[in-house]
Amino acid sequence: MDSTRYTRGQEALARIHGHIGEGVMNALGDIAPDFARFIIEFPYGDIYSRNGLSPKERQIATIASLVTLGNAPTELKAHIQGSLNVGCTRDEIVEVIMQMAVYAGFPAAVNSLLVAKDVFAELDAKDKM
Amino acid sequence: MDSTRYTRGQEALARIHGHIGEGVMNALGDIAPDFARFIIEFPYGDIYSRNGLSPKERQIATIASLVTLGNAPTELKAHIQGSLNVGCTRDEIVEVIMQMAVYAGFPAAVNSLLVAKDVFAELDAKDKM
Amino acid sequence: MDSTRYTRGQEALARIHGHIGEGVMNALGDIAPDFARFIIEFPYGDIYSRNGLSPKERQIATIASLVTLGNAPTELKAHIQGSLNVGCTRDEIVEVIMQMAVYAGFPAAVNSLLVAKDVFAELDAKDKM
Amino acid sequence: MDSTRYTRGQEALARIHGHIGEGVMNALGDIAPDFARFIIEFPYGDIYSRNGLSPKERQIATIASLVTLGNAPTELKAHIQGSLNVGCTRDEIVEVIMQMAVYAGFPAAVNSLLVAKDVFAELDAKDKM
Amino acid sequence: MDSTRYTRGQEALARIHGHIGEGVMNALGDIAPDFARFIIEFPYGDIYSRNGLSPKERQIATIASLVTLGNAPTELKAHIQGSLNVGCTRDEIVEVIMQMAVYAGFPAAVNSLLVAKDVFAELDAKDKM
Amino acid sequence: MDSTRYTRGQEALARIHGHIGEGVMNALGDIAPDFARFIIEFPYGDIYSRNGLSPKERQIATIASLVTLGNAPTELKAHIQGSLNVGCTRDEIVEVIMQMAVYAGFPAAVNSLLVAKDVFAELDAKDKM
Repeated sequence: MDSTRYTRGQEALARIHGHIGEGVMNALGDIAPDFARFIIEFPYGDIYSRNGLSPKERQIATIASLVTLGNAPTELKAHIQGSLNVGCTRDEIVEVIMQMAVYAGFPAAVNSLLVAKDVFAELDAKDKM
Repeated sequence: MDSTRYTRGQEALARIHGHIGEGVMNALGDIAPDFARFIIEFPYGDIYSRNGLSPKERQIATIASLVTLGNAPTELKAHIQGSLNVGCTRDEIVEVIMQMAVYAGFPAAVNSLLVAKDVFAELDAKDKM
Repeated sequence: MDSTRYTRGQEALARIHGHIGEGVMNALGDIAPDFARFIIEFPYGDIYSRNGLSPKERQIATIASLVTLGNAPTELKAHIQGSLNVGCTRDEIVEVIMQMAVYAGFPAAVNSLLVAKDVFAELDAKDKM
Repeated sequence: MDSTRYTRGQEALARIHGHIGEGVMNALGDIAPDFARFIIEFPYGDIYSRNGLSPKERQIATIASLVTLGNAPTELKAHIQGSLNVGCTRDEIVEVIMQMAVYAGFPAAVNSLLVAKDVFAELDAKDKM
Repeated sequence: MDSTRYTRGQEALARIHGHIGEGVMNALGDIAPDFARFIIEFPYGDIYSRNGLSPKERQIATIASLVTLGNAPTELKAHIQGSLNVGCTRDEIVEVIMQMAVYAGFPAAVNSLLVAKDVFAELDAKDKM
Repeated sequence: MDSTRYTRGQEALARIHGHIGEGVMNALGDIAPDFARFIIEFPYGDIYSRNGLSPKERQIATIASLVTLGNAPTELKAHIQGSLNVGCTRDEIVEVIMQMAVYAGFPAAVNSLLVAKDVFAELDAKDKM
């Protein structure tokens, strides 16, 4: 195991997703432990740990991609939360999703806006507690 | 015709794509003049003219989306050039495309890097003339 | 705001979706009011308000597209209901979905037929009340 | 071999695509003769031979689907020609493609309009000869 | 009706999916009986009944395709169970899904691994009863 | 740099693609040298180097995925050649592609069969020299 990549990946994962990232890793670890490790090593250890784009710019790219895919609402939710964690505002996230109507069509944008609405509502509910 | 949106859209189109945007509009205008107008009005007049994201952030989102779609090399080429026009560096464009391997798969990223390579080579060839 | 497009779009939205369209617009309006307006203006005000295809032909095209996308069951449901509203029969809707197996694969067609089955069952349940 | 389906399929293929359909079948026949037969039997013999939608409505659905897929320009070209053969006008085909910008995004619509433009130009060139 | 294809298809369906296949066919039969028949005749009667690949190899190809589509979790579940029925091991299924991260992206692979985890957990729960 | 993964990846790349793999790596290396390294390390070093599936089974899964994506003909060509290199027969490759008509639609299968036809014709032309 390449401990540098793994450690670097864990740090990037925690920086973007907080404790929620661990939950997904544990769920995957039961069925595909090597794949849970690959996720930490490649997307987080190799890609998100790079310089060259700011953390905010990387989240904008990821949200644009997930809206375009249109079939990964769980990941979209995690990265909307992650975007807020690295400094994006709610309005910026909404702007990125709106823009995707041009490239991925209106259904992809509408469904993603409703995912964002859920994330924001959950955060507001937490704040009130 | 809503002249404000149209004028605003033409300005956004010119700011992002320079004179190349006009060529596409003319090609479309022969077969679907209303649609050529819609492109100027909605994506450029309504979306790219908004505040809330910087021009650079909007191009990052667009490139991420086009790489993810994987079947729009002409538009990708136009927006790689457009990204440079609004202030992205070549390295930043390459970073966005690389990151897309995580979400859209390696073939989408590889083929888009080769499109970027072509755009950069064309620019270098122009500079030498 | 371009009141002609907006008014025209609201009329097209009501003609196709009845009161259900308003619900989606309100849900979106909370998080992205401009986008709710864009939906009324562009897809409904600019596209569905055009001549050149009959309302029934436009719904056939939309259902074909939503089945092909395969990831927009909420929109598919809304347009199956909308297709009935503009004069398509249940059998015609089923025919369009079946044909999509050829282009989008059998899973896309099967899952869309089950969406249609739900819409038809809800309508039958209402009729019995 | 089920001769009824095959014969019925050949007739539907000829009605929609004329002699061009045979060319594709021959090209496929070299590498996958059973698959060439399946295409005649299932899409053309089972689906396009059905009642329940007019030939024009079936072509509208197919064009909508191929524009949405965005990666089948050869099939799109064949079905734009086929749509004209069964009675669609050029304007109707352009309308269907334009509408797809709403569901599949603007790049899918733009690229498909340029395919339609090519088909129409080829036909005009033939007419002049 | 071509009884040979239909009978052959029913046998292939039963061999791969056991009694679960019938349930889907009945659900579809209510709304689109011809389509239920087409599924038995074409995918199962024409394709899965062919020699040239082992049943295990065919399931590997199908799982790879369904993971790549990313929007057909019901079919994926049915074919994960079907893969076990024709002799694939759980580890082999997990390997195929992991490999798809390379081509279809990590979200497609992660979501499919969680579907496989559900299938395996349901089987374990049955075994305990 | 993790030399074990890199070395292992180079070996897997050479085993599957022969010298052709190097060409792609060099083309990418000019614009994104880190990404060229990532391709060798992750898909080839981490995934294709694993046990758990035979090399032939891995190529069947990859071809199924690339046919399903429908927008990566260069990669499909490389993996059709790679499938032959690890022991698949031409007929097996054709079978996998045909089966994909069920899941990804007929255009995806037809276009991929024509790619396979090209690969086989190039090999036959080489054999004659």
